Amino acid sequence: MNTEVRNPLVLFMPSGKRGRFAVGTPILDAARSLGVYVESVCGGRATCGRCQIEVQEGNFAKHKIVSSNDHISEKGPKEERYERVRGLPEGRRLSCSALILGDLVVDVPQDTVINAQVVRKAASDRVIERNSAVQLCYVEVDEPDMHKPLGDLDRLKAMLEKDWGWKDLLVAPHVIPQVQSVLRKGNWGVTAAIHRDMDSSRPFIIGLWPGLKNEAYGIACDIGSTTIAMHLVSLLSGRIAASSGTSNPQIRFGEDLMSRVSYVMMNPDGREAMTKAVREAVNGLIGKVCEEGNVNREDIFDCVFVGNPIMHHLFLGIDPTELGQAPFALAVSGALQFWAHEIDIDVSRGARLYMLPCIAGHVGADAAGATLSEGPYRQDKMMLLVDVGTNAEIILGNKDRVVAASSPTGPAFEGAEISSGQRAAPGAIERVRIDPITLEPKYRVIGVDKWSDEEGFEDASWATGVTGICGSAIIEVVAEMYLAGIISEDGVIDGAVAARSPRIFQNGRTFSYLLREGRPGEPRITVTQNDIRAIQLAKAALYAGVKLLMEKQGVTEVDTIRFAGAFGSFIDPKYAMVLGLIPDCDLAEVKAVGNAAGTGALMALLNRNHRREIEQTVKKIEKIETALEPHFQQIFINAMALPNKVDPFPKLAAAVTLPARKMDSEGSVAGEATPRRRSREERAARRDRN
Amino acid sequence: MNTEVRNPLVLFMPSGKRGRFAVGTPILDAARSLGVYVESVCGGRATCGRCQIEVQEGNFAKHKIVSSNDHISEKGPKEERYERVRGLPEGRRLSCSALILGDLVVDVPQDTVINAQVVRKAASDRVIERNSAVQLCYVEVDEPDMHKPLGDLDRLKAMLEKDWGWKDLLVAPHVIPQVQSVLRKGNWGVTAAIHRDMDSSRPFIIGLWPGLKNEAYGIACDIGSTTIAMHLVSLLSGRIAASSGTSNPQIRFGEDLMSRVSYVMMNPDGREAMTKAVREAVNGLIGKVCEEGNVNREDIFDCVFVGNPIMHHLFLGIDPTELGQAPFALAVSGALQFWAHEIDIDVSRGARLYMLPCIAGHVGADAAGATLSEGPYRQDKMMLLVDVGTNAEIILGNKDRVVAASSPTGPAFEGAEISSGQRAAPGAIERVRIDPITLEPKYRVIGVDKWSDEEGFEDASWATGVTGICGSAIIEVVAEMYLAGIISEDGVIDGAVAARSPRIFQNGRTFSYLLREGRPGEPRITVTQNDIRAIQLAKAALYAGVKLLMEKQGVTEVDTIRFAGAFGSFIDPKYAMVLGLIPDCDLAEVKAVGNAAGTGALMALLNRNHRREIEQTVKKIEKIETALEPHFQQIFINAMALPNKVDPFPKLAAAVTLPARKMDSEGSVAGEATPRRRSREERAARRDRN
Repeated sequence: MNTEVRNPLVLFMPSGKRGRFAVGTPILDAARSLGVYVESVCGGRATCGRCQIEVQEGNFAKHKIVSSNDHISEKGPKEERYERVRGLPEGRRLSCSALILGDLVVDVPQDTVINAQVVRKAASDRVIERNSAVQLCYVEVDEPDMHKPLGDLDRLKAMLEKDWGWKDLLVAPHVIPQVQSVLRKGNWGVTAAIHRDMDSSRPFIIGLWPGLKNEAYGIACDIGSTTIAMHLVSLLSGRIAASSGTSNPQIRFGEDLMSRVSYVMMNPDGREAMTKAVREAVNGLIGKVCEEGNVNREDIFDCVFVGNPIMHHLFLGIDPTELGQAPFALAVSGALQFWAHEIDIDVSRGARLYMLPCIAGHVGADAAGATLSEGPYRQDKMMLLVDVGTNAEIILGNKDRVVAASSPTGPAFEGAEISSGQRAAPGAIERVRIDPITLEPKYRVIGVDKWSDEEGFEDASWATGVTGICGSAIIEVVAEMYLAGIISEDGVIDGAVAARSPRIFQNGRTFSYLLREGRPGEPRITVTQNDIRAIQLAKAALYAGVKLLMEKQGVTEVDTIRFAGAFGSFIDPKYAMVLGLIPDCDLAEVKAVGNAAGTGALMALLNRNHRREIEQTVKKIEKIETALEPHFQQIFINAMALPNKVDPFPKLAAAVTLPARKMDSEGSVAGEATPRRRSREERAARRDRN
Repeated sequence: MNTEVRNPLVLFMPSGKRGRFAVGTPILDAARSLGVYVESVCGGRATCGRCQIEVQEGNFAKHKIVSSNDHISEKGPKEERYERVRGLPEGRRLSCSALILGDLVVDVPQDTVINAQVVRKAASDRVIERNSAVQLCYVEVDEPDMHKPLGDLDRLKAMLEKDWGWKDLLVAPHVIPQVQSVLRKGNWGVTAAIHRDMDSSRPFIIGLWPGLKNEAYGIACDIGSTTIAMHLVSLLSGRIAASSGTSNPQIRFGEDLMSRVSYVMMNPDGREAMTKAVREAVNGLIGKVCEEGNVNREDIFDCVFVGNPIMHHLFLGIDPTELGQAPFALAVSGALQFWAHEIDIDVSRGARLYMLPCIAGHVGADAAGATLSEGPYRQDKMMLLVDVGTNAEIILGNKDRVVAASSPTGPAFEGAEISSGQRAAPGAIERVRIDPITLEPKYRVIGVDKWSDEEGFEDASWATGVTGICGSAIIEVVAEMYLAGIISEDGVIDGAVAARSPRIFQNGRTFSYLLREGRPGEPRITVTQNDIRAIQLAKAALYAGVKLLMEKQGVTEVDTIRFAGAFGSFIDPKYAMVLGLIPDCDLAEVKAVGNAAGTGALMALLNRNHRREIEQTVKKIEKIETALEPHFQQIFINAMALPNKVDPFPKLAAAVTLPARKMDSEGSVAGEATPRRRSREERAARRDRN
């Protein structure tokens, strides 16, 4: 025999972990010993089917894969019975029953894939390795014995330690009165749900069922000011059972965050009412995802929540008033964990709840979730991650250092404070192009398939109407007006252009652009000088925050940009850059990642290691308070221009023909007074209007 | 200088722990470093006054105590201020402020003394060393800082780690929304209540107050079938603020344990109703001790409960049916801990609850409490510990080995199933003596100061009446009848004696003894042959259990006996032994220890180390199921005789003149038939009567 007498080599994919194991070792045991996560509920009895793997055989010593069948054991009677009763997909084996006979490559199926159906415009499909805080463990408990009067619960614990290695188990009090009857109903065979988040904390028995319980779910939820989004996912397979969203009912107390804080300050019961409203909405949304996924809410055992600091506080029942004023003190910044029922979340009585940490007073657990999802700290590239809302949350960094800030962009990007602005909804203009020669626009409307210059648009748009401009189109129309030469780089609509097109018309002391006249009963949709100023203020605030963080990092450019959040999903990176929301960057490296906060929550739900990862990361993130930076105002003023007064945009210029600069490209001091004075005027005008 | 240059030696009493410390070390720090428990809430600010100690000075090198004043620092301004404002008892110092200058003997005052007011007929005053699971910690928290955006809670945790060494603190969810306002109300100085039971579990913040919070209480509670007893105690000083009891309202569902189990079996809502009743009674009793002790129930942060297995299960909401039938399976035997509010106990929202472990299906957490209190496992002497109720719980052992059993004594000792029996209450006869010559009785009645043969007894007893015989007097009257020769050692009332006194009279086929004729409207009080049989059955059951355990231990005598429980408190050891409830023993070594179960609960409340101690001990106790022992019946039959058919009572005989034995002292088989047959007759008769 010329074969070396060595134990077979087994390689697990996708992790790449490998080791040599004695012939006859169950593949599940080999995986466990290498720390490769393979689910199992029945504890090797070949009844739960959770430990499925796919195998390729190989003889690595000879550097080739052979297709002989002798490197893995044949299916035994238990596995055959499972296949007969429950079915096994082609090529799948139960790793608890399949024994190692020779070298193997084992694929561990990863079923959690965040894909485009879940996250709009997702950068890429993503696989989340599972290591959930909840584990289902089937055991067969000794019957009571007068000679050894250990209690039912105590014999259950003893078996959970013997078969599964659980030591020092605590027991959720609601389980205690059930133990007796569940053991007898299961004829001493029961499944326990064990929860352990941190290795340093003692594990808990959180549920108990007669016989084999073979499914457990969790929810990952992002509480946004406007929308609450939720994933319902199997903790055993990682399969996403449903994803859905609902409006945040707190909107009736105030559209934006600060008006909700004001509501709390002015109404003695305001905080309580808003806490109740958001918890009820979350419970309603749980009902919705459970119905969609055909899941019983009693089968939800773990919950992960993220939200901006004010949503985070209101959800927890904390007064958010302090967040509305300097020093913007968070009541709680660290991660939290407790029983879901303790804050009235209506799932299994034994379900736990985990909230990601907040980064700072205006950079919340949602930003932490997005950070976990996009992982600037995991890579060499300098990544800019922005979540644009009423406040922009900005993260910049790489594996060496991460810095964060928030910038008060105001609600302009969301369509508020814009004369023809509206929420993204059917009838809203979402895309705009302006012909640089004729200055004629064309646009697309949400709910209508055609561009406005295509035949049949008017017929097609009767159902929705054309009612206003939503956030993404506001960016585009201003950028297109700039690219078409209608506005200068300092944001002024050029009255001289009015001679070229009736669409530019005088409106008091300034000029406006007519986007659409409107049919009878529809509004006239225009872009006013005020609108442009509002966008300039918002984008300058965002850019100034980004710039400040770049200074802190000592970089003059970023390698890659991620737009998180609903707004970011609809925005065209090119126009964002033309407008100067974001610094110059290779356009291919600017990506919308959808609800990255929700994806981060999902990661923390499916793998408790991600909780430690983000807790440690948040501790290391350096928070910059823009208001305390002496030259923030200067950067802000320079950022008012399109795309920017001082920073060059060579990569953008390579992709887009930018108008020639009229101003001193160094940013003359003389030029500064104009935007600053005007911006003050605009602010006063807005104040009068409100 | 002839003094050796060595650091001063400090000796702490009563622990005897000692060490050398640098001159200038605060005494509190020295105590901490030696593991001597000295309370402190303010963290060395000389404001809480909890760290008081008394000092003797010494120069141990010369083996004499010198009274010079130079071994301890003078009172500084902080300590003087405390003395001025709050007062310091003579000789007391604040150990946080008093510095070591030379050799010292330091007395740490121990304020928890279980004394006769708390425990009737306590064996001795007892000091419980304190190491409560709850600690109050005052800290001054950093104000919020925009440059370091840690949350309020997170800065609080950081300071609790810095000043007090608490790591990885968890937070009770109800505290989270309070943190913000409490910190501001206290102007950043706050007191946190920290709970940590096991060193292996993570500590919890369970409460938070502005400024210095300088008191925390706990309750120790024994849930008996008849009576619920409770201590309210300061967790900081160990002072018992109040002790009280109340009837167990479950009595309305059934007098004894088995009738309550039957009630559950026959009524679908029975378990729930009894759980609700006992929790309400506990909450009522908490109100009562709080009123007596002038304590707010919101200041109770820790609770320890004991009870027999059926009370334990019903209190926890567990169906006790399994305990009513073989194999007497406990649903839970191990110790439990959770939030008090989780089982509706109305104390501070952050209070924890600990239940001692059960030993076996009929040897409950109350027996574990008594075991902890009396500590057979802590000593060389072979100790017999019995708690007599409807079931006798019996513990026998020493530091080498402890065995336990229960024996079904039935309710006779409690006055039930006795013709003139009644509960211990005013009007009940509690002591009886019978003149061996005249056969005339004298007796004492609860609530009356005089013996019945003293002048004025009849006048004095009008208020209470003379209504029956309580448990302790039943023991005495039967024992005295035996000592007076009225009954034989086989328990038969001798008809021949009727000739000597009209008090012995025929009653159907047997004879009775007239204890009291009764005034108009009062019952005639007699002792019937049935009564004596009931007592014989009960005492034989107890004795047989004891004997079985002695056999397991391989001993023929015990060194010391403890009677726990209310019954044991009133019983005269001499009569118990004459009757043969307990084996022969030096009478001076037979002691009633009152509610030892409650004392054990108090120990576990004041010192969490006692929890580990009893958990470990219970695991090691060997449980004997009397029903499974083949010769239990034989021992039982032999134990029917007074004091016993087979075992000698030399120590008793040395103290009391016992009647000459009429029966074969070896216990003739011929003689056995009589008590056994009769006992069966008696059982049948009782059955008919019920």
